[in-house]
Amino acid sequence: MAGQVAPEGIYNEEGSVDASFLSHIANAIAEGDTETLLRDVSHLHQSEIGDLLEALQPEQRRDLVNLMGATFDFTALTEVDDSIRRDIVEAMPNEQIAQAVQQLDSDDAVYILEDLDPADQNEILAQLPFTERVRLRRSLSYPEETAGRRMQTEFVAVPPFWTVGQTIDYMREARELPDSFAQIFVIDPTFRLVGTVDLDRILRTQRAVKIEEIMRETRHAIPATMDQEEAAQIFEQYDLLSAAVVDENERLVGVLTIDDVVDVITQEAEEDLMRLGGVGDEELSDSVLATSRSRVPWLLINLVTAFFAASIISLFDHTIETVVALAVLMPIVAGMGGNAGSQTMTVTVRALATGSLGLHNASRVIRREIGVGLINGVIFAALIGTVAGVWFQSPTIGGIIACAMVVNMFTAALAGILIPMLLDRFGADPAVASAVFLTTVTDVVGFFAFLGLATWWFGLL
Amino acid sequence: MAGQVAPEGIYNEEGSVDASFLSHIANAIAEGDTETLLRDVSHLHQSEIGDLLEALQPEQRRDLVNLMGATFDFTALTEVDDSIRRDIVEAMPNEQIAQAVQQLDSDDAVYILEDLDPADQNEILAQLPFTERVRLRRSLSYPEETAGRRMQTEFVAVPPFWTVGQTIDYMREARELPDSFAQIFVIDPTFRLVGTVDLDRILRTQRAVKIEEIMRETRHAIPATMDQEEAAQIFEQYDLLSAAVVDENERLVGVLTIDDVVDVITQEAEEDLMRLGGVGDEELSDSVLATSRSRVPWLLINLVTAFFAASIISLFDHTIETVVALAVLMPIVAGMGGNAGSQTMTVTVRALATGSLGLHNASRVIRREIGVGLINGVIFAALIGTVAGVWFQSPTIGGIIACAMVVNMFTAALAGILIPMLLDRFGADPAVASAVFLTTVTDVVGFFAFLGLATWWFGLL
Repeated sequence: MAGQVAPEGIYNEEGSVDASFLSHIANAIAEGDTETLLRDVSHLHQSEIGDLLEALQPEQRRDLVNLMGATFDFTALTEVDDSIRRDIVEAMPNEQIAQAVQQLDSDDAVYILEDLDPADQNEILAQLPFTERVRLRRSLSYPEETAGRRMQTEFVAVPPFWTVGQTIDYMREARELPDSFAQIFVIDPTFRLVGTVDLDRILRTQRAVKIEEIMRETRHAIPATMDQEEAAQIFEQYDLLSAAVVDENERLVGVLTIDDVVDVITQEAEEDLMRLGGVGDEELSDSVLATSRSRVPWLLINLVTAFFAASIISLFDHTIETVVALAVLMPIVAGMGGNAGSQTMTVTVRALATGSLGLHNASRVIRREIGVGLINGVIFAALIGTVAGVWFQSPTIGGIIACAMVVNMFTAALAGILIPMLLDRFGADPAVASAVFLTTVTDVVGFFAFLGLATWWFGLL
Repeated sequence: MAGQVAPEGIYNEEGSVDASFLSHIANAIAEGDTETLLRDVSHLHQSEIGDLLEALQPEQRRDLVNLMGATFDFTALTEVDDSIRRDIVEAMPNEQIAQAVQQLDSDDAVYILEDLDPADQNEILAQLPFTERVRLRRSLSYPEETAGRRMQTEFVAVPPFWTVGQTIDYMREARELPDSFAQIFVIDPTFRLVGTVDLDRILRTQRAVKIEEIMRETRHAIPATMDQEEAAQIFEQYDLLSAAVVDENERLVGVLTIDDVVDVITQEAEEDLMRLGGVGDEELSDSVLATSRSRVPWLLINLVTAFFAASIISLFDHTIETVVALAVLMPIVAGMGGNAGSQTMTVTVRALATGSLGLHNASRVIRREIGVGLINGVIFAALIGTVAGVWFQSPTIGGIIACAMVVNMFTAALAGILIPMLLDRFGADPAVASAVFLTTVTDVVGFFAFLGLATWWFGLL
């Protein structure tokens, strides 16, 4: 069965590029054996060529593109890590890029052009036919990560008074149709969008019926300046396959398709996960130095908060000297608070990202988290208190750590939900900064509650 | 512009259900005002009704479904949290469920039926027409989270020798077409799949052309028993809109569509994020007790490791008594190791989930992480050593903490990449368990290196 999925077998059992296929291609590249490359690479799917490029060495990638020339499928470049694409494109002469761009759908062409510096961009655009140049310039004029940047400017649009028969005849004859499409758009003479028709509706309707009778009014036209994440949420909510993109005068300028939206969804989910883990936009292909540099800022911020927490401990150095068991137990109080808080924070960050946490349910969710914090606080206070009391043969120490646990688990729950919500309210990305603030709170409160209670109890004030 | 997206305005600025709309509907429910509900609810999109249901109280949800009766759009139940769906469906008599199920596409029907206990399932299935019953039973016979469970059993299939004209005429006359579709399938007389044709290809081809001339051979047929996550990866890789699902004899049994796949992708990305944060399948609508219960196991596991780390500290209680500055500084060493390790772990877990980390690049990525760990280790060792040395006016303490930092950051990098890779290799989900193991390693090594070095240096062995 597996054979059906990738009959050419460029992948091994684990889904990565097969080692023997890889060395076969590497040999062909080394020997300049264009014939083998044409036979074994050009029929692959763009994403397979993308995986192949990622598996090759940087030098080999550039040679492969050069050797294959015009037969290379440049859409493959939309499937590789940004740094790899930039590396390949920068090694290509502008003329070759211009030729490549002409093979591509406009959304893929923009993907490649947007990385280049303005001078190269202009030189390449100048070599393109007029219509294409105008379309690409328009896409590039919209800010990054907007619907206008991601849209495809090739689409089929017909007037509402055409019949189904006329529309089918037009599609049979027209030369400049997009490579593939799932719906056609209905526009008025000024290019203003009036509706959409799914292809299956056209196919099941008699030829004499007018398009306006079977079109649906467009409820989900996407403004070109809309953020791609917001556009993706509309696709998800309304199960769209494609959606019209309109300019500020509601004129149809392009179409956003589900395959681009799937990329956006994956990318945004990945961003949240990476940010919660304290890593930025890094890619697996980044160098040691680039990776190291991109991770230092996060560690630096954490270092500052770590010293802050340490300074709380140092307030109580006299207490620790007297009762050294406190030093042994204090990381447990802080750590368990951190774990409980990050459970709450993870749920909150995800709920904010998917839009399922809003004003209408905020107070209920906050109350729930406080309830969970108190219940789990009491459970773990009892548990930790007992173990610590037995370990150090001191009911007092058990009691102190139990009280500190309840305080810290309650604080952790509150901080875990309020920090991301406040960050979101003030327009910051909750995934980026929540974890630092949360750890600071649970460390500081954990150390302070535990050591403070002990100092007071043992009369060491 | 925003008005275009939700012209009925059930949402407020923030994208959650508008409070005044909500109380308007709540009133209508309280007064049993069916007319208002029909006017203001029945035209909403299924996902909007879903959001409305989630915003209402449990009692109101059940009343709404009862009051609207047959005019209620049951696809809305596929858009709400599992616990809410179960709550609503369990309150409905089996006859009403049977009627509802008949309105639905088979994939949505399965979604509702799979939650019910077998006795209810059988009673409901018995009330359905023969063909529908057989189809739903087949879908339900595949394990959860497989392509067979998620597929839609309504599709259009034609023989290869039909012409485009015949196919279009068939679609114009057939009554039992799916609600919407983007491609048709080509089958032989034994229902074995031979190819697919996208609708746009049919529309741009002359009537006399045979289907077999324009069909594409199916490279991406999905076995019904394939895990839904694997199926989603095929959709992502090959930018599919829909794919044929085949049984063990390669006979066409259904079609998997991109909208279901988008749900799978979102869900799987969410699972990874939630698991890394130590939370399971919980939903925002879960009760306090259910949430508390589901979070306890993770906290328990962390507690065990926290006591293990504490026992390492207790080995050195004599040293801490003598040099209390060590108690103040030791959380910094452990914490920074934890942060650096979780950066590496996050990248690794994500790369494993997307299949971009495999045997072909494992050794390169491991070497990169070790490099990053050493470089950042040295940077932060210098920084922390200096600050700690100045703070406690002791170059010795600065030197000790610096050495311990290098050791722990290096260990953290190694553990951050090797733990998820090993878990993956042994068939465990790296997202679930990596964090616990990692924290254990960075805490234990952090405390041991720092306190051990200090003990040795100050001659307190």
